[in-house]
Amino acid sequence: MEKLKGNMLIAQSGGPTVVINQSLVGAIVEAKKHKEIKNIYGSLHGIKGILEENLIDLRKESSSTLEAVAKTPCCALGSVRKKPSEEDCEKIFNILMKYNVRYFFYIGGNDSAETTYIINESAKKVNYEFRCFHIPKTIDNDLKENDHTPGYGSAAKFVAMAVMGDNLDNLTLPGVKIDVVMGRHAGFLTAASSLARIYSDDGPHLIYFPERPFSIEKFIQDVQKVYEKLGRCLVVVSEGIVDENGEPIAAKFTKEVDAHGNVQLSGTGALGDLLASQIREKAEINRIRADTFGYLQRCFPTILSEVDEKEARDVGEIAVKYAISKYQNGSVAIKREIGKKYKVYYERVELEKVAKETRSMSSNFINSEGNNVTEEFIEYAKPLVGKLPKIGRLKKVLVPKLK
Amino acid sequence: MEKLKGNMLIAQSGGPTVVINQSLVGAIVEAKKHKEIKNIYGSLHGIKGILEENLIDLRKESSSTLEAVAKTPCCALGSVRKKPSEEDCEKIFNILMKYNVRYFFYIGGNDSAETTYIINESAKKVNYEFRCFHIPKTIDNDLKENDHTPGYGSAAKFVAMAVMGDNLDNLTLPGVKIDVVMGRHAGFLTAASSLARIYSDDGPHLIYFPERPFSIEKFIQDVQKVYEKLGRCLVVVSEGIVDENGEPIAAKFTKEVDAHGNVQLSGTGALGDLLASQIREKAEINRIRADTFGYLQRCFPTILSEVDEKEARDVGEIAVKYAISKYQNGSVAIKREIGKKYKVYYERVELEKVAKETRSMSSNFINSEGNNVTEEFIEYAKPLVGKLPKIGRLKKVLVPKLK
Repeated sequence: MEKLKGNMLIAQSGGPTVVINQSLVGAIVEAKKHKEIKNIYGSLHGIKGILEENLIDLRKESSSTLEAVAKTPCCALGSVRKKPSEEDCEKIFNILMKYNVRYFFYIGGNDSAETTYIINESAKKVNYEFRCFHIPKTIDNDLKENDHTPGYGSAAKFVAMAVMGDNLDNLTLPGVKIDVVMGRHAGFLTAASSLARIYSDDGPHLIYFPERPFSIEKFIQDVQKVYEKLGRCLVVVSEGIVDENGEPIAAKFTKEVDAHGNVQLSGTGALGDLLASQIREKAEINRIRADTFGYLQRCFPTILSEVDEKEARDVGEIAVKYAISKYQNGSVAIKREIGKKYKVYYERVELEKVAKETRSMSSNFINSEGNNVTEEFIEYAKPLVGKLPKIGRLKKVLVPKLK
Repeated sequence: MEKLKGNMLIAQSGGPTVVINQSLVGAIVEAKKHKEIKNIYGSLHGIKGILEENLIDLRKESSSTLEAVAKTPCCALGSVRKKPSEEDCEKIFNILMKYNVRYFFYIGGNDSAETTYIINESAKKVNYEFRCFHIPKTIDNDLKENDHTPGYGSAAKFVAMAVMGDNLDNLTLPGVKIDVVMGRHAGFLTAASSLARIYSDDGPHLIYFPERPFSIEKFIQDVQKVYEKLGRCLVVVSEGIVDENGEPIAAKFTKEVDAHGNVQLSGTGALGDLLASQIREKAEINRIRADTFGYLQRCFPTILSEVDEKEARDVGEIAVKYAISKYQNGSVAIKREIGKKYKVYYERVELEKVAKETRSMSSNFINSEGNNVTEEFIEYAKPLVGKLPKIGRLKKVLVPKLK
């Protein structure tokens, strides 16, 4: 392959993660090693920055700044939720040509892979020599072709630790507790709460996923059963749980209320509060609480998986290496080696394969009742999350009661 | 003072903190050093455990278990929300006598101080030789006589870090973000969010406390002003904000909805969602989100202040030392030495002084507009929270736009 000289542009997209800047810095540091790459531009707020020509000069950033940024959560370049139209992509491509961008890297989920794909098609049409790579990122862990995605392990660690703490809280003041976790269509992050369990009676006692139809009646029965046995029950549900017709549980309730007044309930707290109210009404249990973990799952500083941090760095680096030396375009995918010890390798995959659809949890990760994970899931997720804190517990030798 | 021999009983009460077990273990380890103390009993779930005679033998716990428990969040003995009646206290006291308990320690907030006080009065009435101490604990930081209380520094650190991350999230995807923080009557924890600020445009941009009347109109104006300047706005509000008549803002909205339907909105998400809907309706701003930090503030493992951890240990130890060598009863209070360097000392104070009322933020900690903290608050809170993570930020040198 001939050497292609020109400028590079990199951007970040979608929801942040605590390790997405590792991918950014991995790509920049790698790019600096190659003479083919002249200017290194960063676009502010994803493709919005390209469309508005708000670009920054990443060669002007010192190494120490870059390394501090790498360890900082969220998108240092800013992000965007915009999914560009075909027309936008055409416009973006023209701007890339104007700035002599020959290397384009887009860090994000499947939408970002699709944007990269469309821009690349524009380049092909006019025979513009161009290399572009999608760099994977998503706490949802829903990208096809990947064993798992950068950002997931750290968010999973946050969820596991949060549920660990909340299980102790629930032991302290027993009752029913419902925790709502991110992941609209894929239950991977919700499932990670299972890693919080250490002792046999530890929660989460019930876990509900968007992959299985959620029935309020079954849910109440499940909770009652656990509560009768343990005197408490810790439930983790995905924000994206749906009924048998695929209608989101959250939306169902929201509509009911909207019909009566102008109060909007589309916020993050609604689902948890409303599930709690169902238990309060239909089961004879007193202390019921709900929390929605919200954005903290994707942005809390210092709670990160070391494996995730390293892999996020790797995919950024590798995307640049691939673009310079091996491939014209693609997405970097993380594959896991089969074997006892956790080990990954990276592979270039076609952009279309990552762009089109997302994946959800495979059925071997969810138990038959649809209210818990399987051992297979735990084996899958453990190495991605890494070490969790130690939890001490008293033996509690009872004092004989005196007459 | 004569040596009083007999058994010791210790219990935990109220909401958990991440360092409350340090106080428990501090007291146990200290107690083991004194021959006066025979058995060391722990009551399960506070006074409920005494009333039901569910006591455990804390001498049967190994040192390594105790030290692991000390580092574990929440109440290892379990807790209770019950405020005992005078009759309960009488009953409790009789059980304490039955088990020859001569040393009683109760870790908790002002209600626990009151319980300790009433039990002690019962002892006095019948001339039962008895030593009892209240050991302070509360993330709300609302105990009188104390510069600050164990549990606060760590919860404050969680809030500061959460808002640090959320500020980065808000920079990544700009809009209005509202974070709801615990503390029904005291704004200390909400105020700690101010420690998240590093760069001049960092959030929280607005902070609202239960100590100042909250006006929706003023709130919307405040948000609009910040949004116009920065293109984003990060707001932190206490869950306990009230209007000029002292009516909780959350309750106001809840009632509106209750009148229309049977959906309960007393859950944790309601206030944030409803403030968000007010902005959505009355200000022309698109992206508005709300999160309620919920129980994670008081139970998240590993996010703790080292100063807080040490002081929590100290107050447990000192309560036992006081009871054995100096005083018949009291509460251990943390006082701060005047001077540049942070330093505390401990003092015995009368139980009544801590029991009766709680305190809220002094007015020199809140700005005149009632929407931010003062420098004085930051100076007060910084040493309690300790080191916060480094946040890297790009210089962002703009690339000149091409024609």
